Amino acid sequence: MAETKKTNIILFSGEYDKAMAAYIIANGAAAFDHEVTIFHTFWGLNALRKDEQVAVKKGFLEKMFGKMMPRGADKMGLSKMNFAGFGPKMIKEVIKKHNALPLPQLIEMAQEQDVKLVACTMTMDLLGLQKEELLENIEYAGVAAYIGDAEEGKVNLFI
Amino acid sequence: MAETKKTNIILFSGEYDKAMAAYIIANGAAAFDHEVTIFHTFWGLNALRKDEQVAVKKGFLEKMFGKMMPRGADKMGLSKMNFAGFGPKMIKEVIKKHNALPLPQLIEMAQEQDVKLVACTMTMDLLGLQKEELLENIEYAGVAAYIGDAEEGKVNLFI
Amino acid sequence: MAETKKTNIILFSGEYDKAMAAYIIANGAAAFDHEVTIFHTFWGLNALRKDEQVAVKKGFLEKMFGKMMPRGADKMGLSKMNFAGFGPKMIKEVIKKHNALPLPQLIEMAQEQDVKLVACTMTMDLLGLQKEELLENIEYAGVAAYIGDAEEGKVNLFI
Repeated sequence: MAETKKTNIILFSGEYDKAMAAYIIANGAAAFDHEVTIFHTFWGLNALRKDEQVAVKKGFLEKMFGKMMPRGADKMGLSKMNFAGFGPKMIKEVIKKHNALPLPQLIEMAQEQDVKLVACTMTMDLLGLQKEELLENIEYAGVAAYIGDAEEGKVNLFI
Repeated sequence: MAETKKTNIILFSGEYDKAMAAYIIANGAAAFDHEVTIFHTFWGLNALRKDEQVAVKKGFLEKMFGKMMPRGADKMGLSKMNFAGFGPKMIKEVIKKHNALPLPQLIEMAQEQDVKLVACTMTMDLLGLQKEELLENIEYAGVAAYIGDAEEGKVNLFI
Repeated sequence: MAETKKTNIILFSGEYDKAMAAYIIANGAAAFDHEVTIFHTFWGLNALRKDEQVAVKKGFLEKMFGKMMPRGADKMGLSKMNFAGFGPKMIKEVIKKHNALPLPQLIEMAQEQDVKLVACTMTMDLLGLQKEELLENIEYAGVAAYIGDAEEGKVNLFI
């Protein structure tokens, strides 16, 4: 029996376009029967935030990070040509026009294809993000779990 | 007979310095007899644009992207210290001084070494880039082709 | 006897948060007995700069790069929410609060764990950085050495 191939993506970046790339690759690899993990760390955690505000207790700095960071995939900016939010509007418009999938749907599709979505607990701590604020059905782990996955990965990417 | 080693680089970023890094690694791997592919997606596609304007029919948003994005490798900015175009001038100056190769020549060298240059058709659609606007002798493919290459790659990088 | 696993990280980016990610992964992999190399190129070289000024002879452009680039890990900015230096202060504050390690200590730990720290000689030339300006106990190499390491790597990342 052929060994299952593994793809492990670290999503560090908090931009709409980079997260799209991560999820398109993840969904593509899952379609080829890879076991796929996206490990969300630092600003990449924002892709997993719920879009509504969640009442949780936080310190002052953690509250500030919480306020300044985009609340969920749909609110993220672009890595290039963001133009104070106009760039993301343009991208979403051309996505619709060309029948491509916007980021929130790419994330849903990944969950349907059993892509393992992991939130990095160390950076959750640093940025003050709590489980209640993140999507359902994700896993929580640290760098040790990532190394364990990555050393068996055929495709390892840092995005 | 030893198996040919494969290097697959996704060039997502549209900056001069990051594209330089991608092409230096690609040329280095090709010199070590790797089979090398650079898969250009999102802003990385701009490295493959011809530097003259090409008359093609486009929708409004696609025209705007076309106008705002750099036309070819030589027009790209830096990821750090761009200073409204002064940074790239400094980099090109020190490249000349130290007899290093500027980006357009790195791309030529890659083509001479049979590095496979691929343009991502999905993001070409989104950004409204057409084949007529891109360099000759490149290939066109999507995420499925990338996964096929990457799962056999010894070195896979996302830049 | 089991083969030693290798992790090779290219640190291209010159930001505090991205360098933190690189060093956290490197230290994690070293803890799992990987042979780990961080290859510092372009702006990533700044993580290896000494924090004091070192008297060396330089050309005009090289002096300018030297002045404009951060002098050592502790001076680096953030890739997101830098806010003219306020972001790094916030990050360092939460790092302290959560008993995580700031970047300079992560680098020390990497050296104690025998992570091989390499400075890319080609980009040192371009940016005018000289050995006297960089930390002790690092190695100097070019793209050929990187390819040699990477083609045996289990985990290869570009950060």
